[in-house]
Order: sequence, then structure tokens, then C-alpha cells
Amino acid sequence: MRTYLECIPCFMQQAFRAAKVATDDDEKIKEVLNSIGEMVRSISLDNTPPETGNIVYQKIREITGNNDPYQKIKKDNIDEALSLYPELKELIEKSDDRLLTAIRIAIAGNVIDLGVNKNFNIVDDLKKILKQDFAFCDYEEFKNQLSKAKSILYLGDNAGESVFDKLLIEELGKPVTYVVREIPVINDCVIADAVASGIDEVAEIISSGSTAPATILNLCNLEFIDRFEDADLVISKGQGNFEGLSQVNRSVFFMLKAKCPVIARNLNVKENDIVLKSINLY
Amino acid sequence: MRTYLECIPCFMQQAFRAAKVATDDDEKIKEVLNSIGEMVRSISLDNTPPETGNIVYQKIREITGNNDPYQKIKKDNIDEALSLYPELKELIEKSDDRLLTAIRIAIAGNVIDLGVNKNFNIVDDLKKILKQDFAFCDYEEFKNQLSKAKSILYLGDNAGESVFDKLLIEELGKPVTYVVREIPVINDCVIADAVASGIDEVAEIISSGSTAPATILNLCNLEFIDRFEDADLVISKGQGNFEGLSQVNRSVFFMLKAKCPVIARNLNVKENDIVLKSINLY
Repeated sequence: MRTYLECIPCFMQQAFRAAKVATDDDEKIKEVLNSIGEMVRSISLDNTPPETGNIVYQKIREITGNNDPYQKIKKDNIDEALSLYPELKELIEKSDDRLLTAIRIAIAGNVIDLGVNKNFNIVDDLKKILKQDFAFCDYEEFKNQLSKAKSILYLGDNAGESVFDKLLIEELGKPVTYVVREIPVINDCVIADAVASGIDEVAEIISSGSTAPATILNLCNLEFIDRFEDADLVISKGQGNFEGLSQVNRSVFFMLKAKCPVIARNLNVKENDIVLKSINLY
Repeated sequence: MRTYLECIPCFMQQAFRAAKVATDDDEKIKEVLNSIGEMVRSISLDNTPPETGNIVYQKIREITGNNDPYQKIKKDNIDEALSLYPELKELIEKSDDRLLTAIRIAIAGNVIDLGVNKNFNIVDDLKKILKQDFAFCDYEEFKNQLSKAKSILYLGDNAGESVFDKLLIEELGKPVTYVVREIPVINDCVIADAVASGIDEVAEIISSGSTAPATILNLCNLEFIDRFEDADLVISKGQGNFEGLSQVNRSVFFMLKAKCPVIARNLNVKENDIVLKSINLY
């Protein structure tokens, strides 16, 4: 997905929010805003938003000297999600369509996104999403590809959401590789977060090599790119991964909640709609 | 009021929104964002936010070549407010405390603020504010000063809100001078808007000389400054005027709805609280 003009004030908002989490020093926060301001002219609208995000969050790390501002928040979100795990497992076990319920739960987990949301309530959002109609639901096609797949590449998004991903992985019934970011960026999942979420019990965990809050192929390592090209089935969680991969030349199943107006418009859905969408069906 | 760090991303948001109203040309909108971005380093946190706003909106005029992007929107807002006038007049006539009801209505009109709000519904807001408790209500002091005042200086804010101001002016029972901006800036009231709102029937109308979306004394003309210093009673509507005047050395009655988190915090109230507050009681 390309960058839209309204993404630019949003980069500034995100930078401010992330800088405030990273430091209490107002001078450093101002310097972050100065730097991002000076960067605006060089932002290409042809790039994907997370390519710019990559530079924004790198600047925040450099200026504040804090490489993992969301560490504590990520731990808290994982702990909260883990506390909900038994209840959600039971919900899946009691449901008429276990797989679809697990997909809904995995999408609900996507609300734990500190790039977009300032505040969220995971329990409230879960209740809503379990009853909400999908704006797109390529579920039949998903089941069809799943039945034929020997292995699955599952692109994770946020720490905490990863616990909800575990519940879906347990329903897929195929070997899964779970993909995380190379370094901490916002509250995105890295290897340690995936392990803390119990993903290591149900999947192989690898890094994509991306330092951006998204899977952007030209920022990924070669091992990941091989895996991505060869995978029978790719599941992509969240907005960042969608922004990075919406135009790739392979079939990808995107699972997300459209939390920002630009992505909602790009997908031709309404804000807060939930989506299971296959782009590039071959 | 000084500028806070979180005002900076907000300037960028405001610039984007105003540039979009001013032009359909994406390259010009991008150039506005580039320019405001490059300006961030020079923003002094010691200045009031509308002093920066003054430069932001000047840049938008220069780059887009549109000196009055909100002209049509202002006319529509004035027309909508005028259509509500008879009903509101009746409400005042039937109320136990005509003056306080008129103050509430004048504050409700302050929701017509296109610097802060993307969307508003004036009828819904009116209904809420007519019942809402004041976070600060220096009403006794206001009545006391009003009874002694020979004349009143009334600092207007937005076009459309001006119709609601007329209703309050009619209850004041003293000669009123209504003050507007020198040139169109966002949807703020200029002389023509005040006349279209019928203010000329109830008050003298003057310009403060300010080109900013606020009354900032060092941007005002000398005639206004004399009037401001000499006035028996000054009523200041809205956030912009509060930001510009909250630290002046004279008594001013601020009437506003706290629509932004920074102003709410500065006033020690909650967002969306309504306020009749005298600052600098002498």
C-alpha cells in the first residue's frame, strides 16, 4: 500500500507518542519532532507507510537512546492475554466452527496495537469481534488452501496479540512457522515476546529480519524471503503487514481489524471492520 | 498559554485539514506539510499556540493561493445557526435565568470550531450543554461586574457561533463592541460574517487586527489594544482567545468548551467540560 498524504500528520503523532514512552526528557522529545518534521519533504508517497515508519522509529531510538521503550507494556499485554487464554480456549472448544472462532479471536488480538491505538480494552473488543460480521470473509478459500497446505507461514504483529495467534495456530492442524520482527519496534512481537506468549510450544519462531513495524520484503533477510516465496499458505496479521505486503505477487491471507481510516479506505471497508481477505488469488 | 509538545503534531494535523479544504492539488498539500515540517524546529514552546497557528495558516494561504477556504462552510454554519435562532430565543424567554441560559447557548455555539473539530452536530451539542454542569462557573462575579459595567468588549470566535453570541449580547443589556479577526483564518469570524449573523443589529463590530485564529495582543492593532485595556468588562469566547489571553494583566471572562486535551489540562478541567471562568480577578 502506498503512503497517503494523511499518513504524514499521523507519523508525527506516532513519533510524539513513541518518544513520550521512550523518554521523560522534553528536549529529546522536541528533537524527535524536529527531526521527523525535517524528514517530511523526503517522504515518498510511492513507498509503503511502514518504510517511513522504519526511519521514524530508528530516529526515536537514536535520539532517546532507548531501544525498547515498550518492553514493560509488551510484558503486561502478554500477561493479560495469557490470563484470558483458558477462557478463550474453552470458547473455541464449545463453538460450532472452531476454526472460524479462532480466526475471530486472532483478529480481536490485533487491537493490541500501540502504533495506532492510544487506548484499548481487549476484553470489550473481544466481545464485539466475536459477534461482528466480517467486511470480507474469504473463509471458504482459506479452508480450501489450508486443507492442501503442508506448512504455514504465520506473520505475527503485536506482542500480546501473539497469545491469540497461538489459539489459532492450535486450530490450523499443520506445521506453522511464526514470524516476528528483528528488533523491538513499537510493541511489535520479537522472538522473546513470541516465546513468552507460548508460541514456541506450537510453532517454529523466526525473525523476518525487518526492523520496520511491518513485513517489508526489501528489509527482510534472505532466509525469510525464501520461506515467504515457498510457503503453501501465508497468514498475515495486522495493518503493518498488510501495508507492506498488499501488493506482493503471491497469495496472502490478511487478517486484521481496519483501525485507521486510510487502510479502511484502501480495503474498501469501514473503520473498525474486521477482515479475512485473500489478496492475489492464483 | 504556552505551547506544549503535543501541540506540534496537532499543528501538522490542522495544516493537513486546512490545506485539504483550501485545495484539491495533492502537490500543494504535500508542500504545505513539507513547510510546516521544516518549521517545527523553530516553534518556541514559550509562545502561545495561536502565534504558531498564525504562521501555519499564513503558509497555507501562500502555498495554496486560497485566502478564504472556509467561506462556503462559514456561510452554511451561519445559516444553520440563524435557523435555530427563533427556537433558542424562545428557550431563553421561557427560562428561569435568562442570562445563564444565554451564556450556555453562547458556549454551545463554540462547538462550531473547524480548527479542532472535524465533525460536530450543533443541535446535539446544544441539547447537552443546556443541561451540562459547568466545570468553573464564575457567574456571580460575572453578574457583579456586568451590573457595574458601562460597556462590554466581546471577543468573538467562529462564524456561526456568532449567531449564538447575538443571543447573549441581547441579554447583557449594555452597549457591546463585538471583536472579530482582521482576515479570514480557518472558520473564524470576520466583519462580513458578524454582519451576516446579525451582530450589527445589536453591537458595534470592530476588528482586533489579528490575523491569527485568536486574540494575540502583539498582533492586534493599537485601537483594539486601547479598547481592551479600557473596557469595563471583557468576554472572551473560545479556545484560541483563551490561549492568546490567559496570561494578560486584566480581568477577562472566558467562555468556552474545552475541546482539546491540552487546554483542558491547562484549565484543570476534563475534555468537553464547559467553563465560565474569570482569570486575573482584580
